[in-house]
Amino acid sequence: MNAAYPTLETRFRRIALLAEAAGVLHWDMAAIMPEGGSAARGEQLAEIKAVVHGLKTEPDTGDLIADAEARAGDLDEWQQANLREIRHQWIKATAVPEALVARLSLACSTCETAWRHARAEADFARIKPMLQDVLDLTREVGQAKAEATGLSLYDALLDDYEPGGRSADIDVVFGELETFLPGFIAEALDAQARRPEILMPQGPFPVEKQKELGEHLMAALGFDFHHGRLDVSLHPFCGGIPEDVRITTRYDEADFTSGLMGVLHETGHALYERGLPEQWRRQPVGEALGMSIHESQSLLVEMQVCRSRTFIQWAAPIMREAFAGQGPAWDAENLYRLYTRVTPDFIRVDADEVTYPAHVILRYRLERKLLDGDMKLDELPTAWNDGMNALLGITPPSDREGCLQDLHWYDGAWGYFPTYTLGAMTAAQLYAAARDADADIEPAIGRGDFAPLMSWLGQNIHGNARLMHAPELLTRATGRPLDPKVFEAHLRERYLG
Amino acid sequence: MNAAYPTLETRFRRIALLAEAAGVLHWDMAAIMPEGGSAARGEQLAEIKAVVHGLKTEPDTGDLIADAEARAGDLDEWQQANLREIRHQWIKATAVPEALVARLSLACSTCETAWRHARAEADFARIKPMLQDVLDLTREVGQAKAEATGLSLYDALLDDYEPGGRSADIDVVFGELETFLPGFIAEALDAQARRPEILMPQGPFPVEKQKELGEHLMAALGFDFHHGRLDVSLHPFCGGIPEDVRITTRYDEADFTSGLMGVLHETGHALYERGLPEQWRRQPVGEALGMSIHESQSLLVEMQVCRSRTFIQWAAPIMREAFAGQGPAWDAENLYRLYTRVTPDFIRVDADEVTYPAHVILRYRLERKLLDGDMKLDELPTAWNDGMNALLGITPPSDREGCLQDLHWYDGAWGYFPTYTLGAMTAAQLYAAARDADADIEPAIGRGDFAPLMSWLGQNIHGNARLMHAPELLTRATGRPLDPKVFEAHLRERYLG
Repeated sequence: MNAAYPTLETRFRRIALLAEAAGVLHWDMAAIMPEGGSAARGEQLAEIKAVVHGLKTEPDTGDLIADAEARAGDLDEWQQANLREIRHQWIKATAVPEALVARLSLACSTCETAWRHARAEADFARIKPMLQDVLDLTREVGQAKAEATGLSLYDALLDDYEPGGRSADIDVVFGELETFLPGFIAEALDAQARRPEILMPQGPFPVEKQKELGEHLMAALGFDFHHGRLDVSLHPFCGGIPEDVRITTRYDEADFTSGLMGVLHETGHALYERGLPEQWRRQPVGEALGMSIHESQSLLVEMQVCRSRTFIQWAAPIMREAFAGQGPAWDAENLYRLYTRVTPDFIRVDADEVTYPAHVILRYRLERKLLDGDMKLDELPTAWNDGMNALLGITPPSDREGCLQDLHWYDGAWGYFPTYTLGAMTAAQLYAAARDADADIEPAIGRGDFAPLMSWLGQNIHGNARLMHAPELLTRATGRPLDPKVFEAHLRERYLG
Repeated sequence: MNAAYPTLETRFRRIALLAEAAGVLHWDMAAIMPEGGSAARGEQLAEIKAVVHGLKTEPDTGDLIADAEARAGDLDEWQQANLREIRHQWIKATAVPEALVARLSLACSTCETAWRHARAEADFARIKPMLQDVLDLTREVGQAKAEATGLSLYDALLDDYEPGGRSADIDVVFGELETFLPGFIAEALDAQARRPEILMPQGPFPVEKQKELGEHLMAALGFDFHHGRLDVSLHPFCGGIPEDVRITTRYDEADFTSGLMGVLHETGHALYERGLPEQWRRQPVGEALGMSIHESQSLLVEMQVCRSRTFIQWAAPIMREAFAGQGPAWDAENLYRLYTRVTPDFIRVDADEVTYPAHVILRYRLERKLLDGDMKLDELPTAWNDGMNALLGITPPSDREGCLQDLHWYDGAWGYFPTYTLGAMTAAQLYAAARDADADIEPAIGRGDFAPLMSWLGQNIHGNARLMHAPELLTRATGRPLDPKVFEAHLRERYLG
């Protein structure tokens, strides 16, 4: 009998429930909270984090883990993986003093709120002192985690988003992509120039109609509104819990296409959350795996599926009907060209999948420099603009389209950005493997039936939660570790074909 | 130096922040949560309650309180009152085992969700087992609190809503009202029959327009939307925190009058919360006083002010304009008659102020019987209907209009109902004293200026939080303890005048 293990499960269930409460508070803050509540909300979140920290670092937790490990033979595969995750969380938590956790949480809440103004006003100078606080405290936390785990500061932070992820591996994969991309972007733009001109469907597109269309396609993909919501926030995200998944988007009444694809992207995240194994809810092993797998699920839905010719042939008449659209702009082939248009531009969340990796590589380089102390925040706007120019040949007109565009750093998410492009590559590899495994997956999508795809994903990804880390999960699902060549083959087929 | 006291403040600040988080989760559950999230939400709330309970009952809390009390001379008046509230909370918390707290919380969440269906379907049998759980656990909790405080079971529960409140006092006041009311209701109905027929403004009244009108009047009263929201829920309530007060209402497109008055009622609650002293936020003494004072603030705004001829003469043109209303139904005098119409009817929240006390007295009697074990839940529907018939001469057509109409019991709020009528009497007494103190209060209201009234309330009620209990607060503000004669005089003037 392993007596220590159930005690740990009880303790981590409490931690998970408090984290769920914090998740609701976060969603509320981003989606609907009146602005005057932000300071109080920051204090609430900081206090919950401190309570969670206290629970993780209770004096007997280390002994309980050691006792449970000593009788690990009594535990099944999932329990052993759960214990591994518990130890990992405990190591990180004990590395960081509670007061520092609370200070960072409060600094993030303060900075996030101010960022909403600073971005609107393209005023980096205004937000810089608050971002400096976040950066300083993040480095302090990262240093403490690095010491406890033996990782570098950057890898210790990366590990929070990508368990087992290492910057040395990312450098290799990103290096390959950098070799491939510049020539490929030029080729894709050339090929695009030879195709018929892309026509924009003409609006206005009322928000209410856009929301209805989004909800229609979400439901088709398998989103269950009995267990979730669609709302609006400045920066689209997926929050909530498996029983109540909440995604947000933002609408532009002059152009529905970007907001709609944002909805489908977040739906990919939501379906992953919703598909996590019920029997492991509120245990560390039952959580979604790192962000590269999470992003692979949103990008599989958005990039691999919903921007495919197969999907758009099915969805084009639904889009046309939603807005009573008329004329050739609503033809499936035109909408497909629109949804696969390559345009080097400033905003990451609006970027096409060909230029997107350039955005990520830029942020990855900058955040490593900032965290390693090789660059000061003062230099960030210029370094950002220089980087954009070097990678995509364009310069942002203001910091709103530059270093103020993303919430991440301002909210304390450092070491997160590379997971987007790891996710894009993973998505391509998973979708190729899924179609190899079940030849009906793509034809079914052409009929608006996503069940075969979701069944494969449920079995190979969603249902596994954190049982293994990403490399093993991907190898089991696709027969090999992450291989950028699959992503490159996908790009070639779609953009040069 | 009182070393123990600051430690207690820190501990109770954490408790208050967790309670705030629970408040947001409650609001979310009632206003916007998808139904499939309810079981998980129940578990989250139960866990937060359990954590709070654990914090209150930490082994050293009793000693800290005793140490702080031993050096109470070092503390100022507010700190001493805070310490009194801390001891009171500690006594109650240590009286109840943590597991029982969690079980009751979970039972309430389960029952509350099921009640939404049961009410819609007038199906008391369906909800009865869940209500039985809530009742049994409430009695268990009440018994434990009674033993710790020396109060009766009912008074121990009442004390949670009305600090220092005693059923013996309520029996006296309600007894007086019962003597007064039957004859008065008949007189009021007679007087009403002699006035011109009341005309109903004709709809439909679009929800969006109703919301705009509500927000307009809320703002006029002093509600700050930078620090609050107006939303929809089945049972209107005021939630949130002083920095982010959230009220809800429900709309009927065929009749705007009830929903609008609901908004103004909740605005009274909201202004109280918003006016609590900032320097005592997140300490027990800084919370709103018991529910009779809270309800006195909503009823002062709704019944004393917003149903007065003075207010309606100012507001009638605004209402008319909001809906582009035409004809004599929109005349101020007709709207005043409409808003002071007396109609014995089934639904408490729609009741006029003359018949309202009958609803409360019925519930008070029934809940005492149920808690004392003098009645079984099986008997509740019949006892309810018999009581309505005896008090108001009408019988509900189904349990939807009977014992299923209110959320309270189903959500675990036992001992709460009498505070409504205590609040109504308190409101009359406060408004009379306010007008005596500042002769401009009523004329200002006629100009749509609520600042003089709010200034008096801020100074005499809002800003005092829990510094004293209700009898002392009322005596300081009005020169005498609660006197039903003031309420009766108000009714006579309004309904027989």
